[in-house]
Amino acid sequence: MYEQLGLIGCGLMGSSFALALKRAGLVKRVVGFSPSKSTTELALKMGVIDAIANSAVEAATGADLILLAVPVAATEATLTAIQPAIASTTLVMDVGSTKSDVVHAALQTLGNRLPCFVPAHPICGREVSGVQNALVDLYVDEKLILTPLPETDTDKLEQARQIWTTLGCKVSEMSPQMHDAAYAAVSHLPHLLAFAMMNSLGAQAEGDQYLSMAGPGFRDFTRIAAGEPAMWRDILLANRDELLAQSRHFQASLHALEKLIESGDAAALQDSIREASQARTDWHHTAAAPK
Amino acid sequence: MYEQLGLIGCGLMGSSFALALKRAGLVKRVVGFSPSKSTTELALKMGVIDAIANSAVEAATGADLILLAVPVAATEATLTAIQPAIASTTLVMDVGSTKSDVVHAALQTLGNRLPCFVPAHPICGREVSGVQNALVDLYVDEKLILTPLPETDTDKLEQARQIWTTLGCKVSEMSPQMHDAAYAAVSHLPHLLAFAMMNSLGAQAEGDQYLSMAGPGFRDFTRIAAGEPAMWRDILLANRDELLAQSRHFQASLHALEKLIESGDAAALQDSIREASQARTDWHHTAAAPK
Repeated sequence: MYEQLGLIGCGLMGSSFALALKRAGLVKRVVGFSPSKSTTELALKMGVIDAIANSAVEAATGADLILLAVPVAATEATLTAIQPAIASTTLVMDVGSTKSDVVHAALQTLGNRLPCFVPAHPICGREVSGVQNALVDLYVDEKLILTPLPETDTDKLEQARQIWTTLGCKVSEMSPQMHDAAYAAVSHLPHLLAFAMMNSLGAQAEGDQYLSMAGPGFRDFTRIAAGEPAMWRDILLANRDELLAQSRHFQASLHALEKLIESGDAAALQDSIREASQARTDWHHTAAAPK
Repeated sequence: MYEQLGLIGCGLMGSSFALALKRAGLVKRVVGFSPSKSTTELALKMGVIDAIANSAVEAATGADLILLAVPVAATEATLTAIQPAIASTTLVMDVGSTKSDVVHAALQTLGNRLPCFVPAHPICGREVSGVQNALVDLYVDEKLILTPLPETDTDKLEQARQIWTTLGCKVSEMSPQMHDAAYAAVSHLPHLLAFAMMNSLGAQAEGDQYLSMAGPGFRDFTRIAAGEPAMWRDILLANRDELLAQSRHFQASLHALEKLIESGDAAALQDSIREASQARTDWHHTAAAPK
């Protein structure tokens, strides 16, 4: 049981964490900060937080658990701001979608509190954002990756593991580099492609007409294109090198398929589609149900 | 009320149509043909069909309503086979995902029965196929496109419209050319991209590991990659020119986003993502719920 969660960022991810933590009986009191006053007021009204802090450092002061749920580009400034308020016994986590840059920010800012920090990435989200869309079940049955540093305190790492496991996550550990390579491939690239798909329609005079005729396949394929622009700008930039490398891999596979279509090689095209189809069928049983 | 549906192809689409037609009380008897004996036997057992035909022409004989639900590449051969069995009063429809090639096949084969044919494309499907996955509700609340020829009988067109409307479809009409351009953009290209996404992972040594870490965004983005290989081979080849043109449009949008990421132009990147996100948010309310 934690005495006080300092919640820095009362958006979808942070607010859902606070709700889940409260339901699990893991925390007595949540003190929340967001740059927008209307956000924290709504969070208070919804019971997500119990008190409003006027700054990140105020939310962190006196907390034995701190969650950073801010856009990844804001991580370094936020850690700088709260560093003086972190006690040696405090567990500090984030929920950022990229990890090398977050670890870099922690190394630059946390000094003697570096061992308190356990970088975390829950593999879930919604196409809508904000405290008003928080779900107490957001993390249930979802994957969660921890990317500890060599300096991370092993007790803190174990605490982090226990919290997320209690919230229903399947927790695993890896290096920040491995994390960023993998999520460039299975998350950041799909988002980039979904954005490009929507923009490709937008760039065509007939795009709106085509769009009006789209069906359920298009709906699911482009769901992630509705992601929050500022958040995804930060992620795509933070993981630029891995993302561009994955985009090159993807374009090689796309061009190979295009060549088979151009040449009318039906047998090889079917083989290539079969590989894709089989890989997808083999995979999809491990994913959580939609929320 | 139709006396007899001749169902040629007892797969997912055809079987779901028969089930829906029966539930709506629109047909007395369904005679079904599929090349695979086990398919028609299962269709009979499931009550999808009432009698097994040993050939396409046998299923068509005596039918006042014929539905072709075969891979698009098989359309011409199937129409050739059933042409002698089509009466002038019979309504013939297909459910193919491409329409220019289907219309071409009809022009080549139907002769004096051309007016009986109303090409149709229901905008729905599942990532699983076969009669065993048929759903009586597959067509409910989905779009359906009719692409009549100049030669199509106007009464037959009206009959087709009434059938699909009764099954719960939102029916619209357009030219085969318009249809194929639109579905290249909003269906065939997304499938091609989803296949390429899976193949791109398969081509990397770490692909399986990356895949094991994928979450719900990836699940939805790649759902359509599990499509039936032979069916999608036919569609991508049948609509080759429009598909490759859409792929070029898409790659131009992708390259524009890549350039903003490479140059670190955060403001322009956010603007571009916002356009995509807004377009997707504005659209998604018109799509049917997942089945």
